[in-house]
Amino acid sequence: MQSRYFTLHSHPEGTPARELFTLETAELPALAEGEIRVRNTWLSVDPYMRGRMTGVTTYIEPFELGAPLQGSAVGEITESRVEAFPVGTRVRHMNGWRDITQLPAEQCEPLPDIDVPSQAYLGVLGMPGMTAWTGLNRIAEMQHGDNVLVSGAAGAVGSLAVQLAKARGGTVVGIAGSQDKLDWLESHGVKAVSYQGRDADQLTAALTEACPEGFDVYYENVGGVCLEAALNTLRVGARIAVCGLIAGYNDTTPTPGPANLAMLLIRRARMQGFIVFDHWEHYPSFLEEVGPQVADGALDYEETVEEGLERTPDAFLKLFEGANRGKMLVRL
Amino acid sequence: MQSRYFTLHSHPEGTPARELFTLETAELPALAEGEIRVRNTWLSVDPYMRGRMTGVTTYIEPFELGAPLQGSAVGEITESRVEAFPVGTRVRHMNGWRDITQLPAEQCEPLPDIDVPSQAYLGVLGMPGMTAWTGLNRIAEMQHGDNVLVSGAAGAVGSLAVQLAKARGGTVVGIAGSQDKLDWLESHGVKAVSYQGRDADQLTAALTEACPEGFDVYYENVGGVCLEAALNTLRVGARIAVCGLIAGYNDTTPTPGPANLAMLLIRRARMQGFIVFDHWEHYPSFLEEVGPQVADGALDYEETVEEGLERTPDAFLKLFEGANRGKMLVRL
Repeated sequence: MQSRYFTLHSHPEGTPARELFTLETAELPALAEGEIRVRNTWLSVDPYMRGRMTGVTTYIEPFELGAPLQGSAVGEITESRVEAFPVGTRVRHMNGWRDITQLPAEQCEPLPDIDVPSQAYLGVLGMPGMTAWTGLNRIAEMQHGDNVLVSGAAGAVGSLAVQLAKARGGTVVGIAGSQDKLDWLESHGVKAVSYQGRDADQLTAALTEACPEGFDVYYENVGGVCLEAALNTLRVGARIAVCGLIAGYNDTTPTPGPANLAMLLIRRARMQGFIVFDHWEHYPSFLEEVGPQVADGALDYEETVEEGLERTPDAFLKLFEGANRGKMLVRL
Repeated sequence: MQSRYFTLHSHPEGTPARELFTLETAELPALAEGEIRVRNTWLSVDPYMRGRMTGVTTYIEPFELGAPLQGSAVGEITESRVEAFPVGTRVRHMNGWRDITQLPAEQCEPLPDIDVPSQAYLGVLGMPGMTAWTGLNRIAEMQHGDNVLVSGAAGAVGSLAVQLAKARGGTVVGIAGSQDKLDWLESHGVKAVSYQGRDADQLTAALTEACPEGFDVYYENVGGVCLEAALNTLRVGARIAVCGLIAGYNDTTPTPGPANLAMLLIRRARMQGFIVFDHWEHYPSFLEEVGPQVADGALDYEETVEEGLERTPDAFLKLFEGANRGKMLVRL
């Protein structure tokens, strides 16, 4: 049995070129005791993967050059040497960027028994959904009635964050780029503000118009001009959950930070970075709360789907063009 | 009875010119019921006053043009129409920048009965001391054994922060400028690192050499290159208490922030601004803990003293030249 997978053979500088990603093939060895073989059906591509391509250890090990890339994936067990994981079981694991994989069963999670499509466990009920929930609840400590601002508000994480905030918030404002993203936000009762063509002062003015009282919570996915404008619109005691700073992920030279960090002082505000994996012990609580809302349609989620393993790098690169609405996925 | 006081008649741009400060004289009216008259003996000048000179409301009202400037002061009651505040009582109040003042007694605090000089209540046992204690304990939530970094480490706030940290910390490192400040730090068991002549990378290297494991707490008084270097040396879960950002207080154009805010994400760190006045209800706890240590000499404090009311603006302006060690005071 062969596995096809993507590798990197050098570390990208700036925006990775499509040519850096090589599709390779390897013969899989016979399955060992305790292992399962999985045919992946959906692959996840996520912004944080850019950090693993630099060759530097940050909060997670860098990708190994020449080895199969990794990422979240769901698939179906086609062969098993573990009684508890019979053939046909749907599982989630980290051996993405490939079609067939085999791995120790303890590195897999069987998908929970909720009436949602498999790929939901890569998005709204997976890492991005858990990230939205963790940032709002555990980092920003959102309270009922808080005014909430979200950047990257139509992305995989942001689109869930705005809906979770909307369900118990005051004014919820989302920053996004393209018109269809802004329309999606407005259709969900979220005030939509575009960052396009705006500098920090202009974006500040637009946010102030959308929510004159200012924000108690800022859920940060982007950085750059979004962060600078958001700092200007904080209320006293505001909390910023820093989930991501995608605006800078492909920078080749250091980009200066916001000139108005003193707003943290003036507004006695808190800014805190977090990594969802540190909070994974709370995944069952998240699933219990959010799972039913996804199953019954109360929480909407969007997917942007590329077809076929060959398109995986293209799907990944589109994340940095803002080309996805909701979760970016590859269907095999 | 006449009062001599300083005023501003225009808002400074950049570093305030000495000429902006005018010494004026006014006849005080007869004392009203409930009021006391105080002969000030010591005046405080503090970096935060620069913010009150801009004419913009931040966390505190701006100084009124043409009116007496304000600030912490201690003095002795010379006349009283309040039984509980007899003549001779030593009090602390906010009518600084002048020699004689009169005000309602409820705007004064009698000095506590601890065996320290009056001016200690403007420094080590006053707002700066309370600020050091609040930032370390209530904002950065310093734990026993934490490695602690302090910028502006020989200033009024920093010099107490390093000593409080040293009493229960692991490695304590202080950033300062001149050689006599560095010597003072080293003589108190604090590893001293100079920022002078260093860019962020060079300062990062010096901090890493002083404390290779990195810092659990960063007590921030300065901003600029200190903040950028400190962000590079945080441990996972670090807490930054932002007390001040004096490096930027006289900027006339926005100065970009640190290019490495993503370290907050990588190190899952928290950065929080605070204003000591929000925490003043805890002043008795502070006094109970720190007062005896000052009285018995366990906690050292430095004063830089200018003589005479006329020198008050000069004392204030020296704060921005780094010319003070410990608390900057004016003796009348």
